[in-house]
Amino acid sequence: MKIAILLYQEMTALDAIGPYEVLSRIPNAEVRFAAEKKGLIRTDTGFLRLSADCDLSDVSEADILLVPGGPGDRRVQQSPSVLDWIRMIHEQTRFTTSVCTGSLILGAAGLLKDLRATTHWARMEALRNLGAEPTSERVVEQGKIVTAAGVSAGIDMALRLVQKISGDDYAQGVQLGIEYDPQPPFDSGSPSKAPSHIVDLVKSLMD
Amino acid sequence: MKIAILLYQEMTALDAIGPYEVLSRIPNAEVRFAAEKKGLIRTDTGFLRLSADCDLSDVSEADILLVPGGPGDRRVQQSPSVLDWIRMIHEQTRFTTSVCTGSLILGAAGLLKDLRATTHWARMEALRNLGAEPTSERVVEQGKIVTAAGVSAGIDMALRLVQKISGDDYAQGVQLGIEYDPQPPFDSGSPSKAPSHIVDLVKSLMD
Repeated sequence: MKIAILLYQEMTALDAIGPYEVLSRIPNAEVRFAAEKKGLIRTDTGFLRLSADCDLSDVSEADILLVPGGPGDRRVQQSPSVLDWIRMIHEQTRFTTSVCTGSLILGAAGLLKDLRATTHWARMEALRNLGAEPTSERVVEQGKIVTAAGVSAGIDMALRLVQKISGDDYAQGVQLGIEYDPQPPFDSGSPSKAPSHIVDLVKSLMD
Repeated sequence: MKIAILLYQEMTALDAIGPYEVLSRIPNAEVRFAAEKKGLIRTDTGFLRLSADCDLSDVSEADILLVPGGPGDRRVQQSPSVLDWIRMIHEQTRFTTSVCTGSLILGAAGLLKDLRATTHWARMEALRNLGAEPTSERVVEQGKIVTAAGVSAGIDMALRLVQKISGDDYAQGVQLGIEYDPQPPFDSGSPSKAPSHIVDLVKSLMD
């Protein structure tokens, strides 16, 4: 099972690493981290660097393609070479996936036209402008294209992929292995649940 | 707010990156990734390398110390220089924290004697052997020492720390920002919830 994860400057680390932690446990998984130029990629909050061990040209096929989000998505949406690579890999994938604003990159590559898809809750309008039909579901499957909502939603999406690929027992085993039994101190993880002044605050910070 | 995150070979990536994604959003956070020898650290499933930008000697104090877990914990438990560093940093922290088997490293450093603490559910006996009193709570606070259960539990722990440091509103904002509204496809994230044959399977793989 070949898994390709796109890395880029100012991406959000957890968008990639959450799903990675799950997908890398699929039997015979081979994960490759690829960037426009291989080397160290500085993530959005500025303190963490991830190693992209491959140039895009080193990766010519994948069973699963994962595109993370983050403030750097804007630059990637303007990069013909990255968008070409995504379209090329997508032709042969079993699943083409995104987390958070990674879906805006898939949209810029022309892969979401008239499809239901999701992204970070504060970026739904941008997703619509790329031709998709935004929905606030946490994980959205449209054929082989699977999009996840903001940041941490990639973990839930990856468990669903493991379920499809390796079955219910295996997926439950992976969930138990990473002890994913969430108990956040608040129930404020979506704009429909958080107090409205918190929603306004986060929205203003992201705009 | 100075945050030091220990990295080491064969650590589990999400143990560090989950909390990082949350803690790095504390106002004025400065996060440093430190390893016994700075450079690229290969995480446990073998495909991802994280950059440790600091040697341990570059970091002489921190408000929050975070020690992740992973199969490499065994080697770190035997490393006098890492354990000395942990004890030294701990003296001035506001919070000394661990995720998963990172608590075994805190235990090896002598910090958990007679304290309630947690770790990955499959490693509770090892935690007891280090002098702690194991409990299956997801996040355990004992004064300034805060331990979290396996892998993904670090996200919940970090949100609790943000709540203590920056208040309820801010913590809810961070949770909403990373859209942490978990919806795993199964309810099998703890040994008390997963089917017993899945628990046996994962336990045998980990032993």
